Amino acid sequence: MTLIAEPKSMQFEQPLPLRSGASVRGYDLAYETYGTLNADKSNAVLVCHALNASHHVAGVYPGQDNSEGWWDTMIGPGKPVDTDRFFVIGVNNLGSCFGSTGPMHRNPDTGKVYGADFPVVTVEDWVDAQARLLDRLGIAQLAAVMGGSLGGMQALSWTLQYPDRVRHAAVIASAPNLTAENIAFNEVARRAIVTDPDFHGGHFYEHGVVPQRGLRIARMIGHITYLSDDVMNEKFGRQLRSGLDIRYTTQDIEFQIESYLRYQGDKFSEYFDANTYLLITRALDYFDPASRHDGNLSKALAAATARFLLVSFTTDWRFSPKRSREIVKALLENRRNCSYAEIDAPHGHDAFLLDDPRYMSVVRAWFDRIAAEFQA
Amino acid sequence: MTLIAEPKSMQFEQPLPLRSGASVRGYDLAYETYGTLNADKSNAVLVCHALNASHHVAGVYPGQDNSEGWWDTMIGPGKPVDTDRFFVIGVNNLGSCFGSTGPMHRNPDTGKVYGADFPVVTVEDWVDAQARLLDRLGIAQLAAVMGGSLGGMQALSWTLQYPDRVRHAAVIASAPNLTAENIAFNEVARRAIVTDPDFHGGHFYEHGVVPQRGLRIARMIGHITYLSDDVMNEKFGRQLRSGLDIRYTTQDIEFQIESYLRYQGDKFSEYFDANTYLLITRALDYFDPASRHDGNLSKALAAATARFLLVSFTTDWRFSPKRSREIVKALLENRRNCSYAEIDAPHGHDAFLLDDPRYMSVVRAWFDRIAAEFQA
Repeated sequence: MTLIAEPKSMQFEQPLPLRSGASVRGYDLAYETYGTLNADKSNAVLVCHALNASHHVAGVYPGQDNSEGWWDTMIGPGKPVDTDRFFVIGVNNLGSCFGSTGPMHRNPDTGKVYGADFPVVTVEDWVDAQARLLDRLGIAQLAAVMGGSLGGMQALSWTLQYPDRVRHAAVIASAPNLTAENIAFNEVARRAIVTDPDFHGGHFYEHGVVPQRGLRIARMIGHITYLSDDVMNEKFGRQLRSGLDIRYTTQDIEFQIESYLRYQGDKFSEYFDANTYLLITRALDYFDPASRHDGNLSKALAAATARFLLVSFTTDWRFSPKRSREIVKALLENRRNCSYAEIDAPHGHDAFLLDDPRYMSVVRAWFDRIAAEFQA
Repeated sequence: MTLIAEPKSMQFEQPLPLRSGASVRGYDLAYETYGTLNADKSNAVLVCHALNASHHVAGVYPGQDNSEGWWDTMIGPGKPVDTDRFFVIGVNNLGSCFGSTGPMHRNPDTGKVYGADFPVVTVEDWVDAQARLLDRLGIAQLAAVMGGSLGGMQALSWTLQYPDRVRHAAVIASAPNLTAENIAFNEVARRAIVTDPDFHGGHFYEHGVVPQRGLRIARMIGHITYLSDDVMNEKFGRQLRSGLDIRYTTQDIEFQIESYLRYQGDKFSEYFDANTYLLITRALDYFDPASRHDGNLSKALAAATARFLLVSFTTDWRFSPKRSREIVKALLENRRNCSYAEIDAPHGHDAFLLDDPRYMSVVRAWFDRIAAEFQA
């Protein structure tokens, strides 16, 4: 049965204080829900998104081809996160560009488009905003919070900021913080955007332009880091675009991998907001719960009481299994309940979005146990 | 004793036919030599350079601080490649921007600066040009050819193009071709340069500008791939530039790694030529001796008769040990003489330029054996 998705929006008048000291007020959060909240409101699952995703987690929009949600393989009727049993909530984060209030919207205090003046948001701020949405939906406690990559950071942060409101947390292809190399890739992407003459210091909207050059480069860099060397070799290898002959050109496309990357860059530059890219990569850079505990992750995670599922993928070099194991180790040091699966998948970081049967069955089994709790 | 370097230049009137079908004429090659060519001219060692290097391989320029050659740890009196015994030649490749004829020079046929019209050069073309230089220096056969990274590709190509002219070849931190991921990184860097409005289709010289934005991004990407994740974490980790406090900014520097990368990008953009960057990365992309043998590297290397030294570094993810082992395997399949050292070094691809004692002693022992041959 096809799951039909319906985008909704919730407005929040009260200012949300941010970690930076700034605050936002009069903001909207775009969200979607799937399934039915049960009578005692114990079956809610919040799904947190990563860089290039939104509240449209699962299902399709009626009459729109290819409108499947970004985690539609994972979430839906009869799927690992079964919407026949769970009430699933997807929410677009503050500062994003897919419906929630972000840099493209007007600051109610000034009447002007935020642009680069949209306040810097952190993973912790997003979790606070999500908690307010749950308040409004009347959900005191989540059966589970889940997310991959940056979404996994939000799931982890939920267990630290609101331990009483989360019974389970699935942290997938994630990390307790970014490495220097991760930050470095983010920084190059940001520099490409910021130094694009069409960026205009982040106020390009009023100039009627978009820093597409910078966005293309940012996306190309990102894409390389999402894939594994292996899968790139398998999919593209050294295949030439024009068949067998080298054309001896430095500016035109010669290899298929170039064609693929340019296409991805072009597509992204047409819909993604440059200021959002800066905000979201910065939220990634800043996330580091151990930093408030002298770098001791075990101390940082002592606050968590949820039961955890950690999943990593062998060829993911952006958020390698080693990083997930750091979280597992810190949880075990706190004698927390934690399941961990390291999935042997060739697809690099992207694997968390794909339909790997072992991965799906691990998540399915974990959610089956959760369902058994509230159905008991 | 300090080795004093003296840059020289040799002009070549006769056109050099290139793999692309084009040719260059009236070109100069900048070069340096160290040590003394022996009576029977049997002690010559040619050193091939990688992307961001030149003919200035060893020694210093009198009166110039910090003017050591890029492989000064490796080459000089009493060093692993001992200039008291060997006559070492460094040559700047055609199309580069450090003295040899390149895009910044005038095309003698048109009287105009080449710019983006400088013909595409390949590793094979460079080797041909180097062979002509040796002809002029009266050197019929090299005791050894050596190089790291792209330089290693040239050393390997020497053994295939001119097997009778090379007794030994040291191929360090190199690969039989680039992977899709390698090409992808090169392509992003090239796109950053080409889409910089100051690039002007490669004819920026006549506009009095330089595509510095693009060059900065290109260099930042390159730099990330030269280092290992480990060494980045050790050197920079998540250290903030301003001490302990996050400043909540998306455009200003927050982490030390950002400061380092921006500095490297700025420096590079002040001296490196944008068209040269395109040409050299393309030469890297194109190199693939097996492509003329249905992808069979073993068949491709059957032409080589030299004795080989292969060296790789454990944390080098740009040209990983696996790639060097492919070359070793293909050589052994041809029953060629081949020594291979996999050096456990933390520095990533950059390790080949550094003074690691195990690495140095491997190269020293190998060159000692070569010296023993012609001194016998």
